[in-house]
Amino acid sequence: MFESAEIGHAIDKDTYEAAVPALREALLEAQFELQQQKRFPVIILINGIEGAGKGETVKLLNEWMDPRLIEVRTFDQQTDEELARPPAWRYWRMLPAKGRMGIFFGNWYSQMLQGRVHGLFKDPRLDQAIAGAERMEKMFCDEGALIFKFWFHLSKKQMKARLKALADDPLHSWRISPLDWQQSQTYDKFVKYGERVLRRTSRDYAPWHVIEGVDPHYRSLTVGKILLEGLQNALKRPDVHPHEVNAAPLGTSVDQLNLLDSLDLTQRLDKKDYEEQLITEQARLSGLMRDKRMRRHALVAVFEGNDAAGKGGSIRRVAAALDPRQYSIVPIAAPTEEERAQPYLWRFWRHIPARGKFTVFDRSWYGRVLVERVEGFCSAADWMRAYGEINDFEEQLADAGVIVVKFWLAIDKDTQMERFQEREEIPFKRFKITEDDWRNRDKWDAYRAAVGDMVDRTSTEIAPWTLVEANDKRWARVKVLRTINRALEEAFEKSDKRAKKHKD
Amino acid sequence: MFESAEIGHAIDKDTYEAAVPALREALLEAQFELQQQKRFPVIILINGIEGAGKGETVKLLNEWMDPRLIEVRTFDQQTDEELARPPAWRYWRMLPAKGRMGIFFGNWYSQMLQGRVHGLFKDPRLDQAIAGAERMEKMFCDEGALIFKFWFHLSKKQMKARLKALADDPLHSWRISPLDWQQSQTYDKFVKYGERVLRRTSRDYAPWHVIEGVDPHYRSLTVGKILLEGLQNALKRPDVHPHEVNAAPLGTSVDQLNLLDSLDLTQRLDKKDYEEQLITEQARLSGLMRDKRMRRHALVAVFEGNDAAGKGGSIRRVAAALDPRQYSIVPIAAPTEEERAQPYLWRFWRHIPARGKFTVFDRSWYGRVLVERVEGFCSAADWMRAYGEINDFEEQLADAGVIVVKFWLAIDKDTQMERFQEREEIPFKRFKITEDDWRNRDKWDAYRAAVGDMVDRTSTEIAPWTLVEANDKRWARVKVLRTINRALEEAFEKSDKRAKKHKD
Repeated sequence: MFESAEIGHAIDKDTYEAAVPALREALLEAQFELQQQKRFPVIILINGIEGAGKGETVKLLNEWMDPRLIEVRTFDQQTDEELARPPAWRYWRMLPAKGRMGIFFGNWYSQMLQGRVHGLFKDPRLDQAIAGAERMEKMFCDEGALIFKFWFHLSKKQMKARLKALADDPLHSWRISPLDWQQSQTYDKFVKYGERVLRRTSRDYAPWHVIEGVDPHYRSLTVGKILLEGLQNALKRPDVHPHEVNAAPLGTSVDQLNLLDSLDLTQRLDKKDYEEQLITEQARLSGLMRDKRMRRHALVAVFEGNDAAGKGGSIRRVAAALDPRQYSIVPIAAPTEEERAQPYLWRFWRHIPARGKFTVFDRSWYGRVLVERVEGFCSAADWMRAYGEINDFEEQLADAGVIVVKFWLAIDKDTQMERFQEREEIPFKRFKITEDDWRNRDKWDAYRAAVGDMVDRTSTEIAPWTLVEANDKRWARVKVLRTINRALEEAFEKSDKRAKKHKD
Repeated sequence: MFESAEIGHAIDKDTYEAAVPALREALLEAQFELQQQKRFPVIILINGIEGAGKGETVKLLNEWMDPRLIEVRTFDQQTDEELARPPAWRYWRMLPAKGRMGIFFGNWYSQMLQGRVHGLFKDPRLDQAIAGAERMEKMFCDEGALIFKFWFHLSKKQMKARLKALADDPLHSWRISPLDWQQSQTYDKFVKYGERVLRRTSRDYAPWHVIEGVDPHYRSLTVGKILLEGLQNALKRPDVHPHEVNAAPLGTSVDQLNLLDSLDLTQRLDKKDYEEQLITEQARLSGLMRDKRMRRHALVAVFEGNDAAGKGGSIRRVAAALDPRQYSIVPIAAPTEEERAQPYLWRFWRHIPARGKFTVFDRSWYGRVLVERVEGFCSAADWMRAYGEINDFEEQLADAGVIVVKFWLAIDKDTQMERFQEREEIPFKRFKITEDDWRNRDKWDAYRAAVGDMVDRTSTEIAPWTLVEANDKRWARVKVLRTINRALEEAFEKSDKRAKKHKD
């Protein structure tokens, strides 16, 4: 979920300074129009990691826009008056009126996350708070509000560096936070529960935007641009609820950097290493699948990737390690008539393995947010809601002990061209290349954006994506096997711990 | 929530037999059209009290319609195959295809209710299950499904009689149920948690229909009529999602009987009794409000009712018992400009009392589902979603210790006429009658239906409605005071119990 916010997004000073004047002017104009229309209020929620620039960004927004039309609200300590009333009262009294903007710091999400990280309650209570927030936001949107939710992120390493810098700076050392961020564990928990909260509450009417917080230029421009686009879209459509045009702003980042760019595709294995490692990992997989702890689990592996990235070859190396009675491979092509008569996920649910079994999906439910999105086979609303539906689906699998491993096999454009040509030249490989493959290649950039969004929105603690550098097939095959093995081992260890805890 | 399903709805045999042939034919026709269009599947969920006619109704539906196009699914014991997979797998595999109908007995709601009633888990886990069901149904609807949810209800007395009759009948005594319904406690818990589930999951895209189960004619005709109307509406609108036309079927019941008809408006108090009881209840209220346990609570009383039903007089009798520093009265008229710039509930949130205090709302947030609905001041979508929003709102109050008491003061049409005339004749009362009052009177039946829906959908364990027979003002005033006193005492007792439990 935070993958794309740890890849070092940055904007240089000149580019930044060139872009700001136009952005400021457009924001001021939108703000003025908002006040004129008096049709809806704007609620901006600011959350995320300590030191990721939340305060600085809000300060800047206030400088850029007309501060008389913005109310910045912090909700740290409850006042006596607030303590004497239901918890939501403090938010209601601070709501911006139609035509105005309210920036909420330390809002309902901060409260629930602090409570969970401090261990004041467990997941079921967190989920109640999440459901409450969802209902409240839905109502605000139905009543006409436009909501922006920003999550400022830093990797743990970046956060530590940042906290150190802040502590050394007398201008900032006065800051206090209800969480002790110096502790490494605090960060881990905050990110873990933060992911749960974002996964559940990123809705089409009020989606989250995760912002990498390291570079001030990048984060400021990104937030400004998202606000501006959202505002403009809502302002020019007086015929619909503002939140109905709020789903859109998935798109290229202001610095053009994409998650896939962060891969080092030069990684490779020589033949000898490959053969050794392959045999080791296959033996390991074979052993793990026969482990008696596997009886409490099932395994699902999803293979997605560029055309000609080597999905088939990788799957064969996995299958080679296994007893055919224990696994099945499900190739996903166009849905059958029977499948088309059912909800989208039905065709995948039917192949979910029983305990002890393993299903390999050669392409998968992610088709909806990849090929169907890019080719326009479904509406934007359909693929937008699919992220949440898929997360729910995988959470149901994980809750039942199914281990979900997901691979994106990535190659670069040149490598793909080489392999296409090779396929056309070698007679027994010719069946593997079609007109479709060439057409898909023309949409390389659209797929690249779709993959970035997919990983950002569906890589979760319970079912993470593994990006596999696949220019070298050997490297890719070993990485796939090793990832599956690690996932199995981790799941078994967790089961052991739980079993031990029960015994004690 | 179940008020309107305990008033003895019934249809006589002749009326029933006259109505059935046309209904059957129309249902068959709709079913045929459904199959032809193959545009959406229909999912029918059957839940409710044991012995309320669930099985009989489904049997009848199967007789009335073409059983080849209906799949009836029961989910009692999980099979081995099902046990080896995530819990939702069994529902997915049984989904009806587009063009077909699936009747689901013992579905996800049965599972969560049984678990909660048996004490396998507590409210937070129940709420997780509720949220899961909501997300699943929302997805089915987004994918095109039309969902009907029927809750068959019986009062406790009716259920006991029914179970006795079934036990004596060898044709039925084989039935088993995972809950022991013979136990009075089982019924209470099932109704209590059932209410929580219905409150949270009655959504515009998949609303619940509560059916009184005593009279077979009534329940069969009602279910048939709701199905038919829902189907026809969806079939004739191929341009929209079926669930978008599903919100409508609030309406008059097939036997014309309304909750308000069940009131005995002849109840009265003579002057002497009234004066004695009034003074007693006022003293009681005064004492309760000064009780130190009141510091942990606040009190909200909502007064709604027919015009000239005596709200003002009742409120004055309540206020007379109190220290003016402790209460405030909020009359609700047309919203101010400031209030119009905010979400609907904002103007009520701002008047929520602090702990230890008491706010009387003379008319209230229920205006949205009464006057705004009847007069068309808001869209149908707005007032339809208001039921859920209001329940959420009151739940937030209750969770924070606010005691919510809600009164509907009911008079009959003749009594209203007398009072209107009296007001016009007596000079100092003339300001109390306006053109609006006469216009509202013309909409007597529309208000009657709106009140029935309102009570059905918002009378909850945490904030129940009290219908006050107000033809006799004395009776009404004493009942109002007594109800408030009881609510305070109950809340105090609960606090005591909780405090004791904490101590032990």
